[in-house]
Amino acid sequence: MEDKHDVQLLRELIQQETWGELTQQHDDMHVQDIAEALGELSAETVHRAFQEFPRERWPAIFAYLAATDQYALLQAMDPEDGRYVLAGLLPDDRTALLESLSQEDMEQLLQLLPQNEVKPALKQLGYPEESAGRLMNTRFVTIRADWTLGKALERVRSRGESEDTINTLYVTDHRGRLLGTVGLKRLVLNTPDEIVENLITGQLVTVNAADDREEAARLIQHYDITALPVVDKTGVLLGVVTVDDVMDVVQEENTEDFHKIGGVGAMTLSLREARPSLLYRKRVGWLVLLVFMNIFGGAGIAYFEETIEAAIALVFFLPLIVDSGGNAGSQSATLMVRALATGDVQMRHWLKLWGKELGVAIALGITMGLAVWGLGLWRGGFDIAMVVSTAMVAVVIVGSMIGMLLPFLLTRMNLDPATASAPLITSIADICGILIYFSIATMFLTLPQA
Amino acid sequence: MEDKHDVQLLRELIQQETWGELTQQHDDMHVQDIAEALGELSAETVHRAFQEFPRERWPAIFAYLAATDQYALLQAMDPEDGRYVLAGLLPDDRTALLESLSQEDMEQLLQLLPQNEVKPALKQLGYPEESAGRLMNTRFVTIRADWTLGKALERVRSRGESEDTINTLYVTDHRGRLLGTVGLKRLVLNTPDEIVENLITGQLVTVNAADDREEAARLIQHYDITALPVVDKTGVLLGVVTVDDVMDVVQEENTEDFHKIGGVGAMTLSLREARPSLLYRKRVGWLVLLVFMNIFGGAGIAYFEETIEAAIALVFFLPLIVDSGGNAGSQSATLMVRALATGDVQMRHWLKLWGKELGVAIALGITMGLAVWGLGLWRGGFDIAMVVSTAMVAVVIVGSMIGMLLPFLLTRMNLDPATASAPLITSIADICGILIYFSIATMFLTLPQA
Repeated sequence: MEDKHDVQLLRELIQQETWGELTQQHDDMHVQDIAEALGELSAETVHRAFQEFPRERWPAIFAYLAATDQYALLQAMDPEDGRYVLAGLLPDDRTALLESLSQEDMEQLLQLLPQNEVKPALKQLGYPEESAGRLMNTRFVTIRADWTLGKALERVRSRGESEDTINTLYVTDHRGRLLGTVGLKRLVLNTPDEIVENLITGQLVTVNAADDREEAARLIQHYDITALPVVDKTGVLLGVVTVDDVMDVVQEENTEDFHKIGGVGAMTLSLREARPSLLYRKRVGWLVLLVFMNIFGGAGIAYFEETIEAAIALVFFLPLIVDSGGNAGSQSATLMVRALATGDVQMRHWLKLWGKELGVAIALGITMGLAVWGLGLWRGGFDIAMVVSTAMVAVVIVGSMIGMLLPFLLTRMNLDPATASAPLITSIADICGILIYFSIATMFLTLPQA
Repeated sequence: MEDKHDVQLLRELIQQETWGELTQQHDDMHVQDIAEALGELSAETVHRAFQEFPRERWPAIFAYLAATDQYALLQAMDPEDGRYVLAGLLPDDRTALLESLSQEDMEQLLQLLPQNEVKPALKQLGYPEESAGRLMNTRFVTIRADWTLGKALERVRSRGESEDTINTLYVTDHRGRLLGTVGLKRLVLNTPDEIVENLITGQLVTVNAADDREEAARLIQHYDITALPVVDKTGVLLGVVTVDDVMDVVQEENTEDFHKIGGVGAMTLSLREARPSLLYRKRVGWLVLLVFMNIFGGAGIAYFEETIEAAIALVFFLPLIVDSGGNAGSQSATLMVRALATGDVQMRHWLKLWGKELGVAIALGITMGLAVWGLGLWRGGFDIAMVVSTAMVAVVIVGSMIGMLLPFLLTRMNLDPATASAPLITSIADICGILIYFSIATMFLTLPQA
């Protein structure tokens, strides 16, 4: 695929304002690629470039721009053009734009909508944030259970061209309650006088409009379906969540977990677009919190000050031993947080996994203890070697246990297991490591008790 | 949705071998849920339970079992039943099973395949590991460009019922080269005497069979499509990768990145299924490597031994300062690795991001410096407070810079940016932190030079 190249070329042509060449260039390009090329340009440039694209492609290109760029572009456009673009957006894309705006900007934009679209738009914004209702497309084709296939096909022909989700037809009763689905394929494969009801498959999967969008994503992934009907509490069909929207949700949720394990607050904006002040706020909390946690580490060291003064060589091994506990802990926390997030591991597995983790941690600890034994012998003699390698075994085991158990504990407390971030685990493991290391040293070396 | 509950109940019924109740229970259950319920049971139990399900559902249930369970189940079954199940698998599911086996087991399984399926199965295994070719489904419906829609619909009717990917029809020339696609919807919406060629849309997206499956995933996500045709070098259509397979790939790749940032080697097995020996191997490499890196940290401390002996209070602040650099570095590395993985950030953005990161790091450093100032004053007086807070500012900035730049550097060297794991960044930042801290201390406190 040469799309990366094409995107780059188109961006350059637009930046250089060589509009003549551009027209030849973009004709067979996908709207996604055009939108990508426009992604980093100013609203004025994008506005100018839009004049070069056929007007019927405007809404589709617009739909793939980032929300901030969408709003800036609407500001730059004539109200009439803005109306045209907004009217051509799918309801779910329109909701995504509206929900990204301040109350004031949103109201301004609602005035650009066709009169009959304002109510549906507001209704969709009435569902909770990050709910399936916000994500769904509200344009779909319904057929009635008592129709013949011939009549159903007629409906498809009259409504079909403009609808996105036509490969599946939704069968409802007279009150709009969803009874089941019929694939377009089955409609085509059967005779026109067959009754719709007979073709419904019994296994209906639905999600409630108020449910979290993550639940919609889970269902689509679990059942390998491409579209998931969204219903209200009485079973009335409200819309359809499609797999492409869900893939974006999955990626966002993954990003959130990824950031959390690295000790960064959840952030929906792209790193490229995020302002420094936002990045500062997302990071400073953990950093300051961990400083105050690390005071305990410092206090641990102060407690053993006499041990340290008596055998200053011990300090040499401090980063080695303490970091190893943190590293082993980060590893187990990472494995556990991810396994809990994907559903690979559930609460009821904790005991079995704990046993396995203990075995692995002991093996890792012994390996690490042996690795530093020679080093201890070289730097400080037999006694120091004993202290260092014993402490290493203990620290790696304790670090691994903390990293493994904390995510379960957080889940148990109904908190997000990803709160067990690598920096948090490292800090806790560090404090334990300091205490373990110097306690063992104090015992082995028969130094003055602290 | 009550599927979680149903799965739990079914599992219990099977464990208790209450076969009578089971038959009422499973009839309207999805195959995915049945497979999930069977997921943690022994091969013998699964084999016994299979007898309770209608034989025509066997292949579909089987397809959703884990590969290790699939193989164990085939061993437990009569060869005849095994043949029946294997013949009913889709080609991509069959390939997923075969590629998970040793050469010997694979050959044994190939003998259970119908004679005419052996060659296609081997052909698919001939594509590189983790390629689009391994992932594709090789059953699809093709129509010819010069056919009428009437003839095309006939083909759909004759081939359609058994095919998975019927919503899109693939239009080829007489040599099997893909010319474009036509949605089933357009077939239905147009008159039967229309020629297929006139309905082809110009924007064809394809992937080469030898291309990485990540490329297939990227294309499906980028273009919001549900099925991606796979072609050979001459453009001949070989198969179709569908969005459900790609979602699994996306999750696996996310897991891989997640593990890497936590300093764990890439692992395709589930944490629950992985043997302790595998977990040991995936973790020990980084841990031992980092111990040897941390020797530099120890050496740094040894170098400043006199400074430390002269002002032992400095050691109290060591974990605070050193960890803060590591934490800030983990944060920037996490943000950067993820942004590079999702494509949000590309190489050409590095300078702009570096400037932004520097600004954020300075603000974070000053905040942290102020936070420890009072602590320094309380524990050690004005001089120590000066040393500690200056060191904190410097360490946070340096840590952030390392965390931000290393992923770019690795990308530049054509390595995976996720190699910049939190433990690696922490270790590097620790060494820098020790050197910076004690250097500043030596300067400020006019102590005996090390």
